[in-house]
Amino acid sequence: MKVFLVGANGQIGRKLVELLGSSSEHSVRAMIRNPEQANELEKLGAQTVVANLEGSVSELAEAVKESDAIIFSAGSGGSTGSDKTLLVDLDGAAKMVEAAEQAGVDRFVIVSALQAHNRENWNEKLRPYYAAKHYADKILESSSLNYTIVRPGGLLNEPGTGKVEASKNLGRASIPREDVAQTVLAALTEEHTFKRSFDLISGDHSIPDALKNL
Amino acid sequence: MKVFLVGANGQIGRKLVELLGSSSEHSVRAMIRNPEQANELEKLGAQTVVANLEGSVSELAEAVKESDAIIFSAGSGGSTGSDKTLLVDLDGAAKMVEAAEQAGVDRFVIVSALQAHNRENWNEKLRPYYAAKHYADKILESSSLNYTIVRPGGLLNEPGTGKVEASKNLGRASIPREDVAQTVLAALTEEHTFKRSFDLISGDHSIPDALKNL
Repeated sequence: MKVFLVGANGQIGRKLVELLGSSSEHSVRAMIRNPEQANELEKLGAQTVVANLEGSVSELAEAVKESDAIIFSAGSGGSTGSDKTLLVDLDGAAKMVEAAEQAGVDRFVIVSALQAHNRENWNEKLRPYYAAKHYADKILESSSLNYTIVRPGGLLNEPGTGKVEASKNLGRASIPREDVAQTVLAALTEEHTFKRSFDLISGDHSIPDALKNL
Repeated sequence: MKVFLVGANGQIGRKLVELLGSSSEHSVRAMIRNPEQANELEKLGAQTVVANLEGSVSELAEAVKESDAIIFSAGSGGSTGSDKTLLVDLDGAAKMVEAAEQAGVDRFVIVSALQAHNRENWNEKLRPYYAAKHYADKILESSSLNYTIVRPGGLLNEPGTGKVEASKNLGRASIPREDVAQTVLAALTEEHTFKRSFDLISGDHSIPDALKNL
């Protein structure tokens, strides 16, 4: 698959670039805001495309055309305020959904957050962030696209274990970013994840088994 | 109609309380966060109900039950940050939509902002606010409710003229809050506004004519 990656410079994004860049099954085009980011990502095996999530839908549609799938793992991050949460995590994601529809890119996998679909379980200190993720996910679910929404628990930088638990509703727990990236990659082509949303934490199952048993 | 008003303490909300409170056709229940706000609104002819847009959907559903219609003119206002824009203007509105569905209150009129549906026309300084309104409107449009979305231009405190222009797309212009309140009131029972969204500015038409010709 020709995979278009949004958020390639994020921590999960970089792992996805490495995995996709070294895959024989896929190729990866990484969206970057700044041409200076190109060199490093190209070394990891990605092509790069300059575009901005705060730009227009038509600019984004132009960037994604001829891709087979979009992975959205972008986020404005903790260092900016809720202004950017609204404009990047929510509106940016929604624009990318519209761009995918316009460009005829049917497959769309988004990295969300554990329990983003249940307001009562939102992390109290991060409620605005969870609200943005919640509505971005809703927009994707109500789109015409073949979506998968992956909602990982607390993200760790330790090495992946390859063992996860995936289900509609899971209690608060953590997972290495590497396992999230591996799960997103596996979900791309696993039909059992099509039009499905699930929580994801560390667990006892191999990633393929966890996805098949959703 | 028994009208449930969210945002009764806002500037448009107060005018709506006055109009509804003195109407022979309608009665008004005003949602308030703080019991201390009750006295003043009751003097204007409203009953009051204590509930919080940052509370749960079930709390809001309890508050709206037995109403015939909901008017949502609440906003977190300019003095708080985008955190509250996300949690009140977007999530609060969406929760109220869910509460209406749960409680079987079918009619829902929301006060939005001119061109909130067209990103390219969002006020550059207020983009996060417009994003929140945009998605709140989208959630309402994709609900099962009989909605009307009123998108007024720049709000003025001068007296109303009773003359407006209403249409799907209008250029940037202003309108007195009093005319917005009168239009919302007229829209409540005007079938031609059912399941419709429109921009609203000062113009040449009487409010009933403007709504009939949408």
